[in-house]
Amino acid sequence: MSKQILVLAGDGIGPEIVSEAVKVLRALHDEGAIDVTLQEGLVGGAAYDALGDPLPEETLTAARDADAVLLGAVGGPQWEPLHISKRPEKGLLGLRAGLGLFANLRPAILYPQLAGASTLKPEVVSGLDLMIVRELTGGIYFGQPRGVETLPSGERRGFNTLVYTESEVERICRVAFDIAMKRGKRVCSVDKANVLECTEMWREVATATARDYPEIELSHLYVDNAAMQLVRAPKQFDVMVTTNMFGDILSDCAAMLTGSIGMLPSASLNAHGQGMYEPIHGSAPDIAGRGVANPLATILSVAMMLRYSLDAAGAAMRIEAAVSRVLDQGLRTADILSEGMREVGTAEMGDAVVAAL
Amino acid sequence: MSKQILVLAGDGIGPEIVSEAVKVLRALHDEGAIDVTLQEGLVGGAAYDALGDPLPEETLTAARDADAVLLGAVGGPQWEPLHISKRPEKGLLGLRAGLGLFANLRPAILYPQLAGASTLKPEVVSGLDLMIVRELTGGIYFGQPRGVETLPSGERRGFNTLVYTESEVERICRVAFDIAMKRGKRVCSVDKANVLECTEMWREVATATARDYPEIELSHLYVDNAAMQLVRAPKQFDVMVTTNMFGDILSDCAAMLTGSIGMLPSASLNAHGQGMYEPIHGSAPDIAGRGVANPLATILSVAMMLRYSLDAAGAAMRIEAAVSRVLDQGLRTADILSEGMREVGTAEMGDAVVAAL
Ligand SMILES: CC(C)[C@H](C(=O)O)[C@@H](O)C(=O)O
Ligand SMILES: CC(C)[C@H](C(=O)O)[C@@H](O)C(=O)O
Repeated sequence: MSKQILVLAGDGIGPEIVSEAVKVLRALHDEGAIDVTLQEGLVGGAAYDALGDPLPEETLTAARDADAVLLGAVGGPQWEPLHISKRPEKGLLGLRAGLGLFANLRPAILYPQLAGASTLKPEVVSGLDLMIVRELTGGIYFGQPRGVETLPSGERRGFNTLVYTESEVERICRVAFDIAMKRGKRVCSVDKANVLECTEMWREVATATARDYPEIELSHLYVDNAAMQLVRAPKQFDVMVTTNMFGDILSDCAAMLTGSIGMLPSASLNAHGQGMYEPIHGSAPDIAGRGVANPLATILSVAMMLRYSLDAAGAAMRIEAAVSRVLDQGLRTADILSEGMREVGTAEMGDAVVAAL
Repeated sequence: MSKQILVLAGDGIGPEIVSEAVKVLRALHDEGAIDVTLQEGLVGGAAYDALGDPLPEETLTAARDADAVLLGAVGGPQWEPLHISKRPEKGLLGLRAGLGLFANLRPAILYPQLAGASTLKPEVVSGLDLMIVRELTGGIYFGQPRGVETLPSGERRGFNTLVYTESEVERICRVAFDIAMKRGKRVCSVDKANVLECTEMWREVATATARDYPEIELSHLYVDNAAMQLVRAPKQFDVMVTTNMFGDILSDCAAMLTGSIGMLPSASLNAHGQGMYEPIHGSAPDIAGRGVANPLATILSVAMMLRYSLDAAGAAMRIEAAVSRVLDQGLRTADILSEGMREVGTAEMGDAVVAAL
């Protein structure tokens, strides 16, 4: 039966990069490797402009009905003055919550062909292959109460709540342990257990859950130390698991270690294997519409989609191999350009991946 | 009149490194450059072991009465099983809160003599001189309510509260702006205004406060982007100002960019110029008692003390110059050792700084 994929191009460079990812999907479909039906929808600033809502009801419904969602990126300066409840980001957060996408997988992989792009010394990052598993529907992102109140003195007071239940911690740890079982079997859980009671509980639950995984070597780091260790010796890590907020910060830090965030995909999964797939980079309004954005992170997000939601690991590997091949051919978008390589635009890069499939 | 300094050696390598810093203080006192009276006290695991409390009442009282506190480091594995309220860290947090030390200054400076120690490429970090101003007595570190409760279902739920009032944000921004006025006049305020209402307010207050500083160029970054930018191009920053939690993470990340956290001091100040001064590195239990720890971060913390609490900027500069001179002489503790340099122990390094004063 055909798999339903909802395509949400979003804002900025979103439409351009998603077009190329769709080319790859269609190519695999046309040759019979996968069977997919694509549908389009609005999210983010684009949805706000069209319908006054960054996450229209029909988009959420379509996402619920789909097997997977392919997202470009959301956000841009023109929507920054809006109230937090109407901003493009709210569309993204609403999809995460609405679909229950609690597990965010963010690989930080250094492509050997792009080793020079890192600001770190080659020996520190060469061969880097780290998976950050970030809790995505809980923590301070969604905790209640939240808001800004006015005190009797007239002064304002802003507040947010970091909150986790044991079962929320347990399920994200299980995802991390399951992934690690297929990799290096080492998981580092990141918390601030020496200061935050909520994450002291996190550490206890991680430790208890690990008892079901005797082969997993579980370690714990405080978040400040984890940020240091990522800069000092990132290759010491196999899988990291952490809260929504810490994962936001650490996964971006880890991504930047590779020097090529235009290459990094992500997956956000729920308990039923449904998933949303998107590049980790943003909507890059400064280069939007110019056909120069790097579509490879979005194309690699399609590979994650095939692997995690469409049960098509073979096709996923073909995409990953094709991306590696175009890099070997010396093709580069502007963000990853280096001497002696051939600069190509968004569409040419997408076509090259399709050709290399 | 003699300035009162409370010396809290703490745990792990604390006593060793503090001894060397005290040597430097005494040398300056003996030659008449400063007039100080030193008193000792217990904090952290050492205080817990002696008195059952990581912050005994007499330590807090002595700290309140002092002009400045010199702290080594707290913590170690033997105290990790303790309840969060008895841990060594609680001593540190109690001093911060008890003295109202809301402004934490964490310079990240790359010493040219140690450029090779960084994991980043030389061109990315050479000349790095960044000041992170971290809010230290508010935010999620101290917010109420907090704890772990048991739900009717029997499941536990951990929670902490991120909270700031406008005046808390304003006063830390003023510290950052005042410091920037004596430096590059650029301040980057870091928040997560697109998700957390509390930090949306932070951004508003930072913007409003900046109106009193027409010469300051204020920018804003989301914390995930700030972590990326620190890795990508740290030299773009002059002064950063942020919340307690974000500052904890970003300042450690920034410190590690230099590759020599054994060199980095910090100051924690209250509204009356009282301050606590400590190295940013931890208590390093693995090397404690062996006389190999690097005392330079603690010695440089004394320089910050002279500048910010003792009104002795001249003597501060002499310490900083002396540290630079011993590095020029090729002296290195194990943590910053490189080829062709002479390895020295903790005491020898301290003596060398005194000789170079
Ligand atoms: C856009 C923003 C709400 C989002 C987040 O903070 O989760 C982004 O930074 C991410 O990491 O996907
Ligand atoms: C020891 C710990 C409580 C402390 C903190 O988180 O503030 C430390 O990491 C620091 O940055 O001074």
